[in-house]
Amino acid sequence: MGAKRKICFPITSRAYYGRSQMLIRKLHSHPDIDLKLMLGGSILLDKYSKHVADDIKAGGFEIEASLFNVIEGGNHVAMAKTACLTALEFTNNLYTSEPDVVVICGDRFEQLAIAMAAAYLNITIAHIEGGDVTGSIDESVRHAITKLAHLHFVTNDDARGRVLAMGEDPDYVFNTGSLDVELAAHVRTTITNEQVNALGVGHDIDIEQPYLMVVQHPVTTDADNRAHLETTLRVVSSFELPTIWFWPNPDAGTGEMADSLRGMRENHPELTQHMRFITNVPAADFIGLMAHAACLVGNSSAGIKECSFLGTPVVNIGNRQHGRLSAEHVTHVDYDAADIAAAIASQLAHGRYESSEIYHRDNASDTIVDLLATTPLYTQKRFHDQ
Amino acid sequence: MGAKRKICFPITSRAYYGRSQMLIRKLHSHPDIDLKLMLGGSILLDKYSKHVADDIKAGGFEIEASLFNVIEGGNHVAMAKTACLTALEFTNNLYTSEPDVVVICGDRFEQLAIAMAAAYLNITIAHIEGGDVTGSIDESVRHAITKLAHLHFVTNDDARGRVLAMGEDPDYVFNTGSLDVELAAHVRTTITNEQVNALGVGHDIDIEQPYLMVVQHPVTTDADNRAHLETTLRVVSSFELPTIWFWPNPDAGTGEMADSLRGMRENHPELTQHMRFITNVPAADFIGLMAHAACLVGNSSAGIKECSFLGTPVVNIGNRQHGRLSAEHVTHVDYDAADIAAAIASQLAHGRYESSEIYHRDNASDTIVDLLATTPLYTQKRFHDQ
Amino acid sequence: MGAKRKICFPITSRAYYGRSQMLIRKLHSHPDIDLKLMLGGSILLDKYSKHVADDIKAGGFEIEASLFNVIEGGNHVAMAKTACLTALEFTNNLYTSEPDVVVICGDRFEQLAIAMAAAYLNITIAHIEGGDVTGSIDESVRHAITKLAHLHFVTNDDARGRVLAMGEDPDYVFNTGSLDVELAAHVRTTITNEQVNALGVGHDIDIEQPYLMVVQHPVTTDADNRAHLETTLRVVSSFELPTIWFWPNPDAGTGEMADSLRGMRENHPELTQHMRFITNVPAADFIGLMAHAACLVGNSSAGIKECSFLGTPVVNIGNRQHGRLSAEHVTHVDYDAADIAAAIASQLAHGRYESSEIYHRDNASDTIVDLLATTPLYTQKRFHDQ
Amino acid sequence: MGAKRKICFPITSRAYYGRSQMLIRKLHSHPDIDLKLMLGGSILLDKYSKHVADDIKAGGFEIEASLFNVIEGGNHVAMAKTACLTALEFTNNLYTSEPDVVVICGDRFEQLAIAMAAAYLNITIAHIEGGDVTGSIDESVRHAITKLAHLHFVTNDDARGRVLAMGEDPDYVFNTGSLDVELAAHVRTTITNEQVNALGVGHDIDIEQPYLMVVQHPVTTDADNRAHLETTLRVVSSFELPTIWFWPNPDAGTGEMADSLRGMRENHPELTQHMRFITNVPAADFIGLMAHAACLVGNSSAGIKECSFLGTPVVNIGNRQHGRLSAEHVTHVDYDAADIAAAIASQLAHGRYESSEIYHRDNASDTIVDLLATTPLYTQKRFHDQ
Repeated sequence: MGAKRKICFPITSRAYYGRSQMLIRKLHSHPDIDLKLMLGGSILLDKYSKHVADDIKAGGFEIEASLFNVIEGGNHVAMAKTACLTALEFTNNLYTSEPDVVVICGDRFEQLAIAMAAAYLNITIAHIEGGDVTGSIDESVRHAITKLAHLHFVTNDDARGRVLAMGEDPDYVFNTGSLDVELAAHVRTTITNEQVNALGVGHDIDIEQPYLMVVQHPVTTDADNRAHLETTLRVVSSFELPTIWFWPNPDAGTGEMADSLRGMRENHPELTQHMRFITNVPAADFIGLMAHAACLVGNSSAGIKECSFLGTPVVNIGNRQHGRLSAEHVTHVDYDAADIAAAIASQLAHGRYESSEIYHRDNASDTIVDLLATTPLYTQKRFHDQ
Repeated sequence: MGAKRKICFPITSRAYYGRSQMLIRKLHSHPDIDLKLMLGGSILLDKYSKHVADDIKAGGFEIEASLFNVIEGGNHVAMAKTACLTALEFTNNLYTSEPDVVVICGDRFEQLAIAMAAAYLNITIAHIEGGDVTGSIDESVRHAITKLAHLHFVTNDDARGRVLAMGEDPDYVFNTGSLDVELAAHVRTTITNEQVNALGVGHDIDIEQPYLMVVQHPVTTDADNRAHLETTLRVVSSFELPTIWFWPNPDAGTGEMADSLRGMRENHPELTQHMRFITNVPAADFIGLMAHAACLVGNSSAGIKECSFLGTPVVNIGNRQHGRLSAEHVTHVDYDAADIAAAIASQLAHGRYESSEIYHRDNASDTIVDLLATTPLYTQKRFHDQ
Repeated sequence: MGAKRKICFPITSRAYYGRSQMLIRKLHSHPDIDLKLMLGGSILLDKYSKHVADDIKAGGFEIEASLFNVIEGGNHVAMAKTACLTALEFTNNLYTSEPDVVVICGDRFEQLAIAMAAAYLNITIAHIEGGDVTGSIDESVRHAITKLAHLHFVTNDDARGRVLAMGEDPDYVFNTGSLDVELAAHVRTTITNEQVNALGVGHDIDIEQPYLMVVQHPVTTDADNRAHLETTLRVVSSFELPTIWFWPNPDAGTGEMADSLRGMRENHPELTQHMRFITNVPAADFIGLMAHAACLVGNSSAGIKECSFLGTPVVNIGNRQHGRLSAEHVTHVDYDAADIAAAIASQLAHGRYESSEIYHRDNASDTIVDLLATTPLYTQKRFHDQ
Repeated sequence: MGAKRKICFPITSRAYYGRSQMLIRKLHSHPDIDLKLMLGGSILLDKYSKHVADDIKAGGFEIEASLFNVIEGGNHVAMAKTACLTALEFTNNLYTSEPDVVVICGDRFEQLAIAMAAAYLNITIAHIEGGDVTGSIDESVRHAITKLAHLHFVTNDDARGRVLAMGEDPDYVFNTGSLDVELAAHVRTTITNEQVNALGVGHDIDIEQPYLMVVQHPVTTDADNRAHLETTLRVVSSFELPTIWFWPNPDAGTGEMADSLRGMRENHPELTQHMRFITNVPAADFIGLMAHAACLVGNSSAGIKECSFLGTPVVNIGNRQHGRLSAEHVTHVDYDAADIAAAIASQLAHGRYESSEIYHRDNASDTIVDLLATTPLYTQKRFHDQ
């Protein structure tokens, strides 16, 4: 028989919680796994994730720790210090909790900090979504996590190739497909006008008409987040379509973007008269909205990944997703008003795309849970020359 | 003409200070470089680095910050928290200082933490000594730093190959040779009996006789540091040769090793009657002692690198240097008393080796200084598929 | 000859910066004083203090450090951790800067943290505004600072009596009068409708008519900040007078109050139709608005102190100022809608009051500067039994 | 019915653990109390407190958290940062644990930091040993804690008077007598030569002969700790009596004192030939040794308090205990070799004293436990004018 494997899952942002829901539920109910949830970062801050912690508790999960560690500033120094404080606090809780494995998701700056702490505590690290190529600081973060991690659950074959090139042990690099895409494939939510207009602030919109959806996050290595946001807003506005605009994620650069959005709403009501601004919806609703959008605009990874499966046309702006494997549903454009406008027009004319399988495997979450429950664990890493 | 390039050099351990002395002096005197020294970690703690900070000031260097951030405990949790606190504090000082480049050396745990902070502050990172393969947590740390760094100064061709395989830009990966070996090649110190017996504690020894030198550091991913140390001590003792034993570096595991050494001295005087225990000597003296030792025993990288050039026979014990490129002067053995004894005996019988060039390039420090002064800088990284 | 006295002035909130402006300017220009400004806390966060740091630099002051250390959450745990992080960071900068004196102002939670750090660094502490009695956590904070401080600049005779009762040395306890009141006595700003309506958000108001001014901050030891705020808002609304409502200070409880204000604006437009919501004005404008208000409502110390001199009628709600020495211009009421309404009505009927001298001394800032420049300094404290 | 009162007891030093043992045991076994032990500071560091954590667990107590937060350096900046880090980490654990009361003991620098965190978390604070007057930074720390605390358990009537003068509520200030003295009154340990010579390092001594006991801690506000220690050592040495010398507590200044002791042992063996150096004994053994010493020399509070009851002659050196209520068994001297020598000679001539009751009440620990279990709790403080 033997003791259950103790698996710690740090959740530090709404986005990762959304995409990991099925995985978390399955880890929680697996007979050989003792799941330890630890919350930190923006997931605890009402304004971004109202009620997420409550939802987690309602799901019958025990929360081992709730660590407030987001430092205000919305700039690089606040972001760096948030990472350091996060690492410091997770160190204490990982030390007390003594998990066998820590699961690190994706490429957010605080996840690298937690991975560093776990590595120094000699805990086996499992990393989900390594090996992709994108822009922004995420590009550095993702690969640095790979070099600290022991088990790798990648979402596509290109990514697997890169993780191996970086010297990881082929026996521990698994292409499980994307959790986001698995969730997108399972969710069949339809959102009503009433529901969407109860969310956020701004104008009532009619999503039974073709509508645009905008998700534009700050690029932390970029100085012009405000200008880029305003370019997008003016272009999107010119289409005079119902628009759902998602508030940017909390990151360096968010402050000026949020400020800019508030200023545009207050001072340029004519530009935002078809727009509704939403900070936060449950993951299923986000997918539902994305699945029916006439076009998704911005720089979210969801445009590349979930939409590849959903077939929603996407206009991806700027460098944030630069290099990420993408299907034909995406048009990549620079921060240029004319290019963005042309691309949106073209995508609206084209309409929906065929579903692509590049990020899709059946049962991604089941595969990951099985591997977490059964893969032999190790801590001493060794570079594998290919 | 344009402003000087501002280069921040964080020094966090005596060892890195020793090997970087020539580099630091040349950075300091370069007309186009404004050098910013920041001290943290064990370099500030008297018991390991008495007077180093004073020496630095005496050299006419300005010290921008002295950050006390070593957390006591000598275990993994203290090590992890030390890294986090180091990162937090360097963030503040890097933010204030606004360097163009931060130079990260080697593979110590706190250097990764500083690299993470610098990356999040959007500062270009230069990394010295990436791409090597070793054991212990250093193996993870080194490669994770590579994936955060922008300029790579590697010490040998194997390392260059690995840094490229990991996706770094070939235009920014330079084999400059090893600074340690450059220093070893320049130093021609001879230490007298009087000098060596004025250092540390223990018995007076006669280094005009063939003598052993032991440098055995803790392996942080290893639970048996105490036992391994005592095995080495008993074997070394059996040769009844004058022995210079260097105190272990401050790291997780140091506490028990130091405790063990103290206990052996107090309770087994017969085993230590030919030994002198030294915590700290200037780098030049360390090289001088190493250059004339009949055999170096332990797990120090100096045994692999500096001794490759010096031709001193080395018995390298355990996994700490596992995988590191080594010349024929090294015999690798496990933590086994009989194997260690046999290897030392064999090396003593063999005597000195031919000097090897695998880690040696002429003018390593000049090359690095030139590249730091002139290479165009960038911050947004991009994976280069080979 | 003789070195200048090095005086460190940590500024951590807009409010303290406002009231300390004259003092800071005089410290800066004093020939025997070398002023070191260090910024931390909410003063660095755009949303509360837009441009304050810029203003400081524009004034020719050098800023020694800008420390981002506000942890998001708006709850007690975030407040406590903000204090700890503030103390940690100021420790580093005080250690580097080596001031002779650190000036601690008032009773904010992060100022106690800085005082603790300074005490442990063996630096003489000067405290401004000790000895008062109020409600909330400020009450504990203020007196704890007194017991760490060496020089005491109190604002009234009652306060001096309490500081002496607490065992402080009579030779070092000075009633200098209040800096806020000194500033209020000097400022003669008149604000126009155009100016006020360019600030903040909400409706245009006519301040040539009698107007209300509301400043209600969270009480950190209080669970019902939201309810209390809404009570005040409903009562104030019922007067249908032009109203300037100041956003609460960033403290535990601010989050829910801000949330509540946003909700009221969005969902109860009828209640806020005469209101303008302002987060931040220069201190002089704040005084100008306060000097001409028909009645000040809320729980700000400005209502007790500045308004005692200005003669503006005040309705002070709840426990936050409980016990603070107040003149006859203040009506104290509990969190009760009927009581608040009656008190406002009564104050509007009464009109302006005679100016009171209880917090006023001529030249408060000159007195403090002189004492900081000339008082012999000491560090070892000793309880003085009265 | 009714929930148990949850009481958090942070233990951060060996000394406080020693004196609080009876109290902790009674809190643990009280039917209405749920005791939460949290360990931090030097109690977790082997070299000072070997096995204490193990002992605690062996006693059947659950340890809620073990927080490594001592920053190396042994200087003021390390001490200040240790306090800040301690506060940060206890904040997290107090937030998770949600105790009704936190018990703060004495006047150590990190206890004020924990008290600050608890105050900001709105937790009721009980303080043991407030109101005394001493030298060093402890003097400031102790009174600042008083001004944050809600329940006061003082050890003598003078202290009660001072706590009331400082404005505390008379209903919550209790003279319970000293826990140290209660323990000293209960313990009847006799230590044999064999036992004492198995401890620490140095020479075997015969404690059946009259012997001296030295306990001299650093004074953190004092620059000459090394010189003062060496003065004491030379004087004590001149009596040529068996001497038990206790290693100094970890505090700013400890480093140089420890260094000095090691240097004296190594370089002046003639001065230490009658001395045994001990870092740590169980509290009962410490009392046993103190009870039979011919004279206690140094600056420990045990000399003033425990020895008042035990009747052991004491020579108290320097300012550390300056102002502390003391009985006639103490001779106070300055850091002057001749004065110290004369005082020791005089105390040896005098022999033992009558037992004093100034710090003694029957059942101190029972009284405190009862009050912690039953006193109505409050959080909002209010200055009580006497």
